[in-house]
Amino acid sequence: MSDCNALPLVILAEKFARLPGIGMKTAQRLAYYVMSMDDNDAEEFAEAIVNAKKTVHNCKCCQNLTEKEICPICDDQQRDKSVICVVEGPKDVTAFERTKEYNGLYHVLHGLLSPMDGITPEQLKIRELLARISEGNVNEVIMATNPTVEGDATALYIANLLKPLGIKVSRLAFGLPVGGILEYADEVTLYRALENRNYM
Amino acid sequence: MSDCNALPLVILAEKFARLPGIGMKTAQRLAYYVMSMDDNDAEEFAEAIVNAKKTVHNCKCCQNLTEKEICPICDDQQRDKSVICVVEGPKDVTAFERTKEYNGLYHVLHGLLSPMDGITPEQLKIRELLARISEGNVNEVIMATNPTVEGDATALYIANLLKPLGIKVSRLAFGLPVGGILEYADEVTLYRALENRNYM
Repeated sequence: MSDCNALPLVILAEKFARLPGIGMKTAQRLAYYVMSMDDNDAEEFAEAIVNAKKTVHNCKCCQNLTEKEICPICDDQQRDKSVICVVEGPKDVTAFERTKEYNGLYHVLHGLLSPMDGITPEQLKIRELLARISEGNVNEVIMATNPTVEGDATALYIANLLKPLGIKVSRLAFGLPVGGILEYADEVTLYRALENRNYM
Repeated sequence: MSDCNALPLVILAEKFARLPGIGMKTAQRLAYYVMSMDDNDAEEFAEAIVNAKKTVHNCKCCQNLTEKEICPICDDQQRDKSVICVVEGPKDVTAFERTKEYNGLYHVLHGLLSPMDGITPEQLKIRELLARISEGNVNEVIMATNPTVEGDATALYIANLLKPLGIKVSRLAFGLPVGGILEYADEVTLYRALENRNYM
């Protein structure tokens, strides 16, 4: 933004530009749009940011994002507590829930192993997964990480930790396009991949 | 966002989705991204929104956005106060300033006439433009609205108001974009370029 612009606007545009997939041009457009919003709407927008950050944290059990101590899925007595579906992030939980076919629990790793980026097992929620399994009620763990190098490596790493414990470990079927991103898979593809999972 | 998500996150995603050019999927991604930000960064983002809304308003003179009473362009004694370039919005001012060739003042209409959308002259900053001109120092007004139906109509409407006052009114030239390829120009542009040809 050229310096003919008001400084607070330049600052706001820079904040928008830090968001993923938003370039400087779009960020400027968004900053101008905020200026055209009602005072009320703008304040509510700002509050929504602060509020989400303040009240949302990881579920004590599955590590998914929630504003409660235990998320509604872990807390749901109708769900099958003997199956845990291990995913990279919260948006993957949303994707599975959209299939309406999975009735087990989840475990959110908050990342994938990636030695190149310095992401080691300690930085993922693997310890928490092992703790859940040590409680004894789990029969099967479904590795539902993306079909990418990092996703496969993470699945294999966790499978190798769990198999000695006598846990059935499965992997999503490669109905998913290889190299694709789980979050964008359509419901049917995702359901097929779940149904045809292969035991490791 | 499915209801397996924390409510504050759903609310935040809905706020993002109201921004222009941001669909629900991108809005969800942005909401998740906010969750991964430092507490500090998220708060600064929220503050930037509130702060821009609170401190930035229209320049008393040209109606461009500024945090001062009079914007730096109107306040600049080096600029030619006898020429006013009339534009649709603040981003058009930025575009002209980028050329580094224009040394006059601006007037921001904050919209274009559009009877279909219920936008009438009273909703644009036309009264403020007439007030500036009535002060007497203006020789020329350049109508720099977009070459669209609304932009042309607005330019014509204002030109008809100003000409009886003895003000020179001009319109941006329309023709081929510099560096453009003739074969890809649309018919109307090419016709304008032909009509407004300059003799060498």
